[in-house]
Amino acid sequence: MPTRQICPDTEQADSESDAVSLDDVRAAATRIARLIHRTPVVTSRRFNDSIGGHEVFFKCESFQKAGSFKFRGASNAIASLSPEQLQRGVVTHSSGNHAGALACAAHVAGTPCWVVMPAGSSPVKRAAVLAYGGRVVTCENNERARTAVADEVQRDTGANMVPPYDDTRIIAGQGTAALELIDQVPGLDMVLAPVGGGGLLAGTCIAARKSQPHIRVIAAEPAGADDAWQSFRAGHRIPLTHPDTIADGLRTSVGHLNWPIIRRHVERVVTVTDAEIVAAMRMFWMLTKCMIEPSSAVPVAALLQKSFFASALPERSATANPSTGKLRIGVIISGGNVDLDNLPW
Amino acid sequence: MPTRQICPDTEQADSESDAVSLDDVRAAATRIARLIHRTPVVTSRRFNDSIGGHEVFFKCESFQKAGSFKFRGASNAIASLSPEQLQRGVVTHSSGNHAGALACAAHVAGTPCWVVMPAGSSPVKRAAVLAYGGRVVTCENNERARTAVADEVQRDTGANMVPPYDDTRIIAGQGTAALELIDQVPGLDMVLAPVGGGGLLAGTCIAARKSQPHIRVIAAEPAGADDAWQSFRAGHRIPLTHPDTIADGLRTSVGHLNWPIIRRHVERVVTVTDAEIVAAMRMFWMLTKCMIEPSSAVPVAALLQKSFFASALPERSATANPSTGKLRIGVIISGGNVDLDNLPW
Repeated sequence: MPTRQICPDTEQADSESDAVSLDDVRAAATRIARLIHRTPVVTSRRFNDSIGGHEVFFKCESFQKAGSFKFRGASNAIASLSPEQLQRGVVTHSSGNHAGALACAAHVAGTPCWVVMPAGSSPVKRAAVLAYGGRVVTCENNERARTAVADEVQRDTGANMVPPYDDTRIIAGQGTAALELIDQVPGLDMVLAPVGGGGLLAGTCIAARKSQPHIRVIAAEPAGADDAWQSFRAGHRIPLTHPDTIADGLRTSVGHLNWPIIRRHVERVVTVTDAEIVAAMRMFWMLTKCMIEPSSAVPVAALLQKSFFASALPERSATANPSTGKLRIGVIISGGNVDLDNLPW
Repeated sequence: MPTRQICPDTEQADSESDAVSLDDVRAAATRIARLIHRTPVVTSRRFNDSIGGHEVFFKCESFQKAGSFKFRGASNAIASLSPEQLQRGVVTHSSGNHAGALACAAHVAGTPCWVVMPAGSSPVKRAAVLAYGGRVVTCENNERARTAVADEVQRDTGANMVPPYDDTRIIAGQGTAALELIDQVPGLDMVLAPVGGGGLLAGTCIAARKSQPHIRVIAAEPAGADDAWQSFRAGHRIPLTHPDTIADGLRTSVGHLNWPIIRRHVERVVTVTDAEIVAAMRMFWMLTKCMIEPSSAVPVAALLQKSFFASALPERSATANPSTGKLRIGVIISGGNVDLDNLPW
């Protein structure tokens, strides 16, 4: 499948305002500073050589607590609750990293946590929730059942709903990863992030574009779950119907709050095939010795596409090193929760 | 197989002197400072919990250039050569990480490198040497052929022999990993390192015991290649006959120069089975998201043995936190060069 890239109409978008501000992201960073890991930035000369000498800086949220960036948003949401709200606990529905992250953050905060998980969820992910003291409520394998059961738990317990991505506290929390990256790596020209529900991508947009407007934000998406790409093309949000990709963290549709932020600030959406994802994941493991999950490999795969830099070096790259023409590129590596018994090679 | 631990006769050993001094290790550290990575120290609260709350600090040489600590010794050996010697290049025989490390260090120094490798060497390791511009000379699959062919290459080319472990420059170079660890983690009570040829272990002994004599050094060895354990028991060096272990970096016998240092400074040798190595390797991957090779998992497996702390908390642990009785333990993680197509699970 070829690369597909679409640029948004930035003129129209600039007239609107964002649901999350840079101050919100900065406040989240302060709020969660003592709860999270300041994750390392990893580089590989051999990777850089393989893409023509551009300098790539991988912000490895795979080393975050609970194994993904999701811990940032979950911690920010919980730290935003009042003492009374904390007593009643939190509830969410998720089959993936948000489930484990919320359970872990709730455990740290000493507040109860209910997670509604579809019956078909991976036993490893369920075990992670249970290991952090979370209570798993099983539901049918569909979106409607998840929401309905979560609402029911909320009514019964009075717990606070913490959605996985369509939430300003979550978006602000996830944006703290890019905020750290910008602090750790001066002079970035571009930041890539994967897009599923869009919490990480929207937060990255606010953190990067509002603090350093010259930074270009590029989204990477599996071709088998390309609703962000479809939405960009149509100019309005088009939810996924039948996602089919190995990148299990990106099988969700971009959220209502997330979409306008993404539309406004993302320069383009690049899609990659599952074969490209697996090859990039394997290459990343070999070169960096860091385990990353398929969803994390999506922006890595985008960078490895031959066509990426053909269209990535236009007039806007004014900050590329003028003597070499090389870019400084940040990549948000979203997580490292891999099932070692089901590796894709 | 049970844990087997033997303590050396330190009285007798103290009357001798070491072939490598702390000044040698410090000089090596200065010599290679700009060539190597100062590798990170990784921790895992869940790992600590699993061994009763002792604090473990993993010095991850898996993130070293060429993927293992071997790059330190190789760089030190090459940086010790005169300009005339450098022109003639370097030669070694190795089927493992020393091969790739020497080729990489030679590439950085701009000096030619010949590596004699047995015909049965892993294609991945051969490819690594070639990728760094090294020249591979194939020989028969036995120790005698390796030495003979390497001697021949040396005669033909005038290249300088850089042995994998039985060499003072190599021992001093490998000791720089422990020197860094001690600087990165104050107040260590104990350091564990794996033992194969003994370059890393001997260097660790000098760096740790000569700078902070209260630090106890413990060696970890595969039960299927237990020559260090056998040698400790006998009181003299007993080479391996038929090594049989998954830890491919530890299938060599302790070297002549390495043995007296190890005998003098190592408190005990702990052996672990291949099953324990594989379980420890997998646990390490899951908890830290860092890929390590089987040889690196050997000291991790030693720590996980139930009997380890039963015999590890005697009178000498005077520095353990007096209020908690918990130890601060450094572990040298030797390398991360894994064949992803042949994972042991």
